Amino acid sequence: MSEIGIGLIGTGFMGKCHAMAWNAVLPTFGDVPKPVLNILCDLDAENAKAKAAQFGFQRWTTHWREVIDDPKVQVVSITSPNAEHREMALAALAAGKHVWCEKPMALTLDDAEAMANAAMLAPGKTLLGYNYAQNPAIGHARQLIEAGEIGRILHMRGVVDEDYMADGDIPWSWRCRAASAGLGVLGDIMCHLVSIAVTLAGPIAEVCADIDIAYRQRPVSGGKPGEMGAVENEDIAQALVRFEAGFTGVLSSSRVAWGRKNHLMWEVHGSGGHLACDQERMNELQFFKAEGLEETRGFRTILTGPLHAPYDRFCPAPGHGLGFNDLKVIEAAHFLRVIQGAEAPLVDFARGLHIERVIHGIARSARKRTWCRIA
Amino acid sequence: MSEIGIGLIGTGFMGKCHAMAWNAVLPTFGDVPKPVLNILCDLDAENAKAKAAQFGFQRWTTHWREVIDDPKVQVVSITSPNAEHREMALAALAAGKHVWCEKPMALTLDDAEAMANAAMLAPGKTLLGYNYAQNPAIGHARQLIEAGEIGRILHMRGVVDEDYMADGDIPWSWRCRAASAGLGVLGDIMCHLVSIAVTLAGPIAEVCADIDIAYRQRPVSGGKPGEMGAVENEDIAQALVRFEAGFTGVLSSSRVAWGRKNHLMWEVHGSGGHLACDQERMNELQFFKAEGLEETRGFRTILTGPLHAPYDRFCPAPGHGLGFNDLKVIEAAHFLRVIQGAEAPLVDFARGLHIERVIHGIARSARKRTWCRIA
Amino acid sequence: MSEIGIGLIGTGFMGKCHAMAWNAVLPTFGDVPKPVLNILCDLDAENAKAKAAQFGFQRWTTHWREVIDDPKVQVVSITSPNAEHREMALAALAAGKHVWCEKPMALTLDDAEAMANAAMLAPGKTLLGYNYAQNPAIGHARQLIEAGEIGRILHMRGVVDEDYMADGDIPWSWRCRAASAGLGVLGDIMCHLVSIAVTLAGPIAEVCADIDIAYRQRPVSGGKPGEMGAVENEDIAQALVRFEAGFTGVLSSSRVAWGRKNHLMWEVHGSGGHLACDQERMNELQFFKAEGLEETRGFRTILTGPLHAPYDRFCPAPGHGLGFNDLKVIEAAHFLRVIQGAEAPLVDFARGLHIERVIHGIARSARKRTWCRIA
Amino acid sequence: MSEIGIGLIGTGFMGKCHAMAWNAVLPTFGDVPKPVLNILCDLDAENAKAKAAQFGFQRWTTHWREVIDDPKVQVVSITSPNAEHREMALAALAAGKHVWCEKPMALTLDDAEAMANAAMLAPGKTLLGYNYAQNPAIGHARQLIEAGEIGRILHMRGVVDEDYMADGDIPWSWRCRAASAGLGVLGDIMCHLVSIAVTLAGPIAEVCADIDIAYRQRPVSGGKPGEMGAVENEDIAQALVRFEAGFTGVLSSSRVAWGRKNHLMWEVHGSGGHLACDQERMNELQFFKAEGLEETRGFRTILTGPLHAPYDRFCPAPGHGLGFNDLKVIEAAHFLRVIQGAEAPLVDFARGLHIERVIHGIARSARKRTWCRIA
Repeated sequence: MSEIGIGLIGTGFMGKCHAMAWNAVLPTFGDVPKPVLNILCDLDAENAKAKAAQFGFQRWTTHWREVIDDPKVQVVSITSPNAEHREMALAALAAGKHVWCEKPMALTLDDAEAMANAAMLAPGKTLLGYNYAQNPAIGHARQLIEAGEIGRILHMRGVVDEDYMADGDIPWSWRCRAASAGLGVLGDIMCHLVSIAVTLAGPIAEVCADIDIAYRQRPVSGGKPGEMGAVENEDIAQALVRFEAGFTGVLSSSRVAWGRKNHLMWEVHGSGGHLACDQERMNELQFFKAEGLEETRGFRTILTGPLHAPYDRFCPAPGHGLGFNDLKVIEAAHFLRVIQGAEAPLVDFARGLHIERVIHGIARSARKRTWCRIA
Repeated sequence: MSEIGIGLIGTGFMGKCHAMAWNAVLPTFGDVPKPVLNILCDLDAENAKAKAAQFGFQRWTTHWREVIDDPKVQVVSITSPNAEHREMALAALAAGKHVWCEKPMALTLDDAEAMANAAMLAPGKTLLGYNYAQNPAIGHARQLIEAGEIGRILHMRGVVDEDYMADGDIPWSWRCRAASAGLGVLGDIMCHLVSIAVTLAGPIAEVCADIDIAYRQRPVSGGKPGEMGAVENEDIAQALVRFEAGFTGVLSSSRVAWGRKNHLMWEVHGSGGHLACDQERMNELQFFKAEGLEETRGFRTILTGPLHAPYDRFCPAPGHGLGFNDLKVIEAAHFLRVIQGAEAPLVDFARGLHIERVIHGIARSARKRTWCRIA
Repeated sequence: MSEIGIGLIGTGFMGKCHAMAWNAVLPTFGDVPKPVLNILCDLDAENAKAKAAQFGFQRWTTHWREVIDDPKVQVVSITSPNAEHREMALAALAAGKHVWCEKPMALTLDDAEAMANAAMLAPGKTLLGYNYAQNPAIGHARQLIEAGEIGRILHMRGVVDEDYMADGDIPWSWRCRAASAGLGVLGDIMCHLVSIAVTLAGPIAEVCADIDIAYRQRPVSGGKPGEMGAVENEDIAQALVRFEAGFTGVLSSSRVAWGRKNHLMWEVHGSGGHLACDQERMNELQFFKAEGLEETRGFRTILTGPLHAPYDRFCPAPGHGLGFNDLKVIEAAHFLRVIQGAEAPLVDFARGLHIERVIHGIARSARKRTWCRIA
Repeated sequence: MSEIGIGLIGTGFMGKCHAMAWNAVLPTFGDVPKPVLNILCDLDAENAKAKAAQFGFQRWTTHWREVIDDPKVQVVSITSPNAEHREMALAALAAGKHVWCEKPMALTLDDAEAMANAAMLAPGKTLLGYNYAQNPAIGHARQLIEAGEIGRILHMRGVVDEDYMADGDIPWSWRCRAASAGLGVLGDIMCHLVSIAVTLAGPIAEVCADIDIAYRQRPVSGGKPGEMGAVENEDIAQALVRFEAGFTGVLSSSRVAWGRKNHLMWEVHGSGGHLACDQERMNELQFFKAEGLEETRGFRTILTGPLHAPYDRFCPAPGHGLGFNDLKVIEAAHFLRVIQGAEAPLVDFARGLHIERVIHGIARSARKRTWCRIA
């Protein structure tokens, strides 16, 4: 396989991110098939046309089914609103395509289950856009854990905070409604944290959670003076966690945490060491190892570099820094290798379903105010 | 009142800490009564004698009741093992003394209640050794919160991790037994975090918690080869929290977190800003304020200085740094002013009882695996 | 102009970096001409062919003059060894091409002068690869300075340390010889620091410097046992600096600083504030402003975001982080706009000559052990 | 020797600091002689009396010679203005006293030489108040260097910045006049940095320096409207340095660096590692060791603790943090041991003279604009 046909649905934040990744993956990696950018879909024709030119797509459409129907398209990137993931993914899988779908997987747990079931039966491969889990710093952490460098895992903690809804004057929007957005902060960013927790510490067995809506009403944009809309999903969520392996954890998230921009922070406590990382300083891994003279021990700041694959594909010099978009390029390369059968997917629809069960489990636990098992 | 008689029970970690504070408080503050170091108690006569000379006490004893019976003693510092706090505090209060007692308040909730009741009826003042809450950085945070600088509180988080039990080969000791130590990490360090949570965010109404013992057995020191003792109290604890004011929080703690030495970290999220602090960098307060041009906003690192009282008593130059022992000196000065009627106590036995209810509530919630109200 | 023809000489660290930038610039920015990747040059035919396929060039060659002779090529990216910059740049300029040349500008000051003179007379535009100066954090710093946010500049400091030669066992190579590499750390990385100093604080009038060779001999790779080669250029350099505007500065650099990977750190002290940045945390700008209540002042960590152009072209969410390669994409977009006449070049050959005069002035000052004026 | 008589001249910033140290040293250390606080001197009788009571001195005076004449006084703490150090120290030494003198040593190099000569001939021991050099973090760094943990020293850098004169509206005072203050920032804080450079990297052989006055005039406090006084000494100073051992260094300092409160930062680059520290985070030592797997290397943050003597005298728990005043207590204990003959002085008048030669050499070099040898 030397070329692979690409169709992309969506041109927003994540749509552009996929487009940039598809452009960069071959120049960066070299040993992957050449992505041929066949078709781009956006509901707005003007925009679709302009973005196709910008991103280098051969043609464009305003009908997403055209992407799936294109016989030259082998991989479909789905970056449309969450509520549309299910229908698009099912159609693409039914058409024999490989599917790279943005997170959260779907609006409801039912949707996610349907998608995972379809993926199990379809010939196409699937991948979910959990780009932070692709960070070489996290890959290195995972290797250290697997190599026993921190001993037995005793505990896992994580936080993911942003402030995109911290201002109470931000207007009421689709994000605030259960029908359009589904979950709130759980679907927006907590799912990223869960993807990392699961990657580093394995599946989650039980949760006990609490959620809160910090701003119960928001002004309706363009509404009458003083008109307010009710916020239907959570701004803040936190969960006690029991991992299947038996140890405990705590996961917290807020979308109203002033000053935090991408504060996706985690730490894994082991019987022989400790690992920690913050996505706001995504090129640094904190590592404490309980060995050697006690008086010279300390958390060391490992700057990622060429020895932390695939950083070397981006730069031969250590500590020069990857960026947010580079993680998507790594993800694209990973998916191409998954399609080639050379790698196991980090988060396919099956594993993604587990993440959905965790975030919906958190919501359910908070509602019922009790511990809930994750199926 | 120009002089005040001091009796000190205990000469260990905290005993020495009190002794150093009693020596330093007048030279440092100037405007407090002169502590006259009357009598020091330690069970070991050799040690009592040596430490009395070192700390500047006029006389020593091996019988703690002698401290309380001494008519010249007006303040009793209690730094003995937790199991003895109740009896000593009750005796001291009954004798009309002021009582400065180390944390945790007592072994059991019953003990703590008895102490709080006694304090309510006695003429003497009480203070618990929650020294971290005396940090000028925290005092400043409290003022900023009270002045509305971060708006309405939306959420509160905290962690307190150390690694004094992180090595699985640390022998089984009194710390591991419920009968001698009572709670584990909850009584050792989580109570400090609760003291700060309560200071900054007010009383806690409900908790839902989980605990874990990371090392279920530890080697018996001096025992037969391979002899192990069962660890009876928790190494790790975490709790979902509802504050009385209505917002949520999360508190976590571990005594087996390799590399953490005094990682007492908290953050208060507000509708207009954000405050955070880590005791390992105790002279730095992180403050984000949602005002001014967005492109120049950021967390600012406020180095404590003379404008953050009572830092000025220690040093006229900002950013020069207070240390752990300085917090005890601040606490001593505070207690002297409480005794003079010039200040309200930060954490007296009444407020301390609330902290005990929270940590015992966490233990109960973890046992019952359900939300528990804090009386 | 909707398309622009690109020729690239070199496929190493920087050659690939240019190639990735030419691929990314249109998808990322949108409003720039489409780079048509005409021809790639590498001395090794196998490599040239493979890299042309990887990077998306239409054809390849092993003769660099073919790149310049190609009438479709409008921009020549020069990423060959420093000793070849002069000849290539002169030929390209003579052929009417625009030239994007990697730093350092040339091997000798004579070469640099010849290049600057040629650029002055030629119709083509020029740009030097001072990518760090393109960091939005630095652009923001520059705006703050120009807007008077830190008042009058009082002082400027900078460090650039790496450890790529810190190991004394790294073999003797072309880097160690004056004939092939010219300057040592001054040409490798100090020139980057000078580019930023000049960008933020204006031209430099005088220097007084010292240099040192930490490892005077290095093992000859593949040589006889124990065979050593003499290191002819500096490992370490530092300079006192007087800026034309009258204030002082200090610039230091080492290529033997263990643990430093890209520690390009600078600070500008003003009469009303202070700015600082470290490339190892390239998405953070430190800003202290002497205004407001003294007790809430502190250095604030500004995470770059969409308000710091052109970060917005990469990501709509703040604090998500740019990477090293993104700076080259910004540089490519900048050069396209320079070519369009829409922007003034940040560091063209004229300004680049000043940088060369500074680093060669540092070398001369260190040799003569006296202050030297920068012409 | 179980007791030792103390006389203290001065009750300002440093006077109080000495007083607190004399009160704390026995309770903290235990194994030092008991300081008997005989007599305190301040020019203002009211203040002398009040401070004697506060600090625990038996009597007070307004005549410093009374301190020296008191036969019970064995140690004289000199914390008076710099211009008086020489006369007082000479008198104290002539009277057979031990002298603990604050830095800078004296107003002029002549004064410092006279003091060093007197100390050489007198029976009394001497110590200068270079308290930062007493930081256990620095002691640990020194041990690591001496043990070869970072290999051969290749380079040394340091900065010491504060902002106590950063505001141009701070009035003209004795600090601004050569006659009263002598040097500016060199005497105020650069001497601290030199004390650490010398402690860690040995004596300095040559300097080449530059200085600047950022605010050439300052408003006269209480003067006529608009009346300004000329600032006669430097706000900013920086020096290229050659250590006697052959390697290079750079030292910089500013008293007009907004936002810096005690930014005394140094780093020592070695052939096998790297050490760095910042006094604003005085309990953290940064250590990079070039050993072990490259992918897990990084600067480690060593939190000082009981293994870094004499931290253990203050606290048995690591990472709990010493403060600025604790360094003075360490210094007091050190001086008592020097007096007992148990330790060699870290910075006595002989070594202090070298520091004075360096800072005056910097001033001279800046005036002459040439390299200057340090005698």
